[in-house]
Amino acid sequence: MSPGKFITFEGGEGAGKSTQAKYLADYLEQQGFKVILTREPGGSPGAELIRNLLVTGGADKWSAEAELLLMYAARADHWQKRIHPALDQGYWVVCDRFADSSVAYQGYGRGLDLDFLNLLYKKTVGDRNPDRTYVFDIAPHKGLGRAAHRFIDGNKNEDRFESFDLSFHERVHQGFLTIAQQNQGRCLMVDANQSIQQIQDLIRQDICSYL
Amino acid sequence: MSPGKFITFEGGEGAGKSTQAKYLADYLEQQGFKVILTREPGGSPGAELIRNLLVTGGADKWSAEAELLLMYAARADHWQKRIHPALDQGYWVVCDRFADSSVAYQGYGRGLDLDFLNLLYKKTVGDRNPDRTYVFDIAPHKGLGRAAHRFIDGNKNEDRFESFDLSFHERVHQGFLTIAQQNQGRCLMVDANQSIQQIQDLIRQDICSYL
Repeated sequence: MSPGKFITFEGGEGAGKSTQAKYLADYLEQQGFKVILTREPGGSPGAELIRNLLVTGGADKWSAEAELLLMYAARADHWQKRIHPALDQGYWVVCDRFADSSVAYQGYGRGLDLDFLNLLYKKTVGDRNPDRTYVFDIAPHKGLGRAAHRFIDGNKNEDRFESFDLSFHERVHQGFLTIAQQNQGRCLMVDANQSIQQIQDLIRQDICSYL
Repeated sequence: MSPGKFITFEGGEGAGKSTQAKYLADYLEQQGFKVILTREPGGSPGAELIRNLLVTGGADKWSAEAELLLMYAARADHWQKRIHPALDQGYWVVCDRFADSSVAYQGYGRGLDLDFLNLLYKKTVGDRNPDRTYVFDIAPHKGLGRAAHRFIDGNKNEDRFESFDLSFHERVHQGFLTIAQQNQGRCLMVDANQSIQQIQDLIRQDICSYL
């Protein structure tokens, strides 16, 4: 059985990643592929327990170090128990956020050592990288405005990261731009100011190179 | 204000560490010192949330890597928010388990790379080691028998580590012996087969070298 492909969606708050990840997963299923749509932090029963610790409460609930280690504990669980077995069984795995988010948020945003992040990746995920990554680009103040509507509209109380100040989100944004630039073979920048339909078309067109 | 001392209690399950940590904390208070009695995993509000994930459920709830990262996320929180500030304020901190437990359980017991554990220590705790560590030595089958009574007697459902097989606990035991041998300046081996009173006397006598 041929191993599946691993597709990740990355970017700041309110960029529309989750919506587009779902559209892509639906599309791939329509094409006859076995597909898993998942997310981070979370995506496996253990990792969802850790997610709940990470995304609720105030910004200062966790130090940068504790936050990073919780993220990687969740990622280890998600990778070992869900993503890796699914790829081995030939599933396409579409994941809303993955390790680039740690580099952007805990590395660029909170100032942790990028070499340490790389080591955590090696120790938990190993050598496998995503096959394709869509990096959604949106101005932080605009994305945060969109994300705020999500919570007003009654979504769960998962607003810890949104509560960090704007300068943090600007560092995260810069981090994602740098990641996309340094990994041009894997990453495609997506202008998140476009319409949902435009972005959907762009991603479908891009993914066809893998079909 | 002179910085406080950091005293840790280590060893396998059912060795009597928690009882003796409490006796020592009480004794130091009677001597007029400011004392904090704490424990790992846990010891701060955030770390106690992580503890609950770690010590409940089945042995296979977490992989070795996820377990180690959860332990160090909890330790980062406990160190940064409770132990380090207390030491700075001149408190003696008496801690029931600390980083040696990660070396014994996740390193020797679950086979993770000791260099990686050392790096996690540097990245979260830094350069400070405990000033004195009491390593309780008890045969694993005997300690596990004692620990089982704790749960039968109605203690919380915190028995995940006890549920690992005996060979795991034998590796942990061997790990603690190695740690004590390699850190003779810091560690004192305590024969946990002695009576509670004998152990209490031995530790009081030892701690006097710091008073």
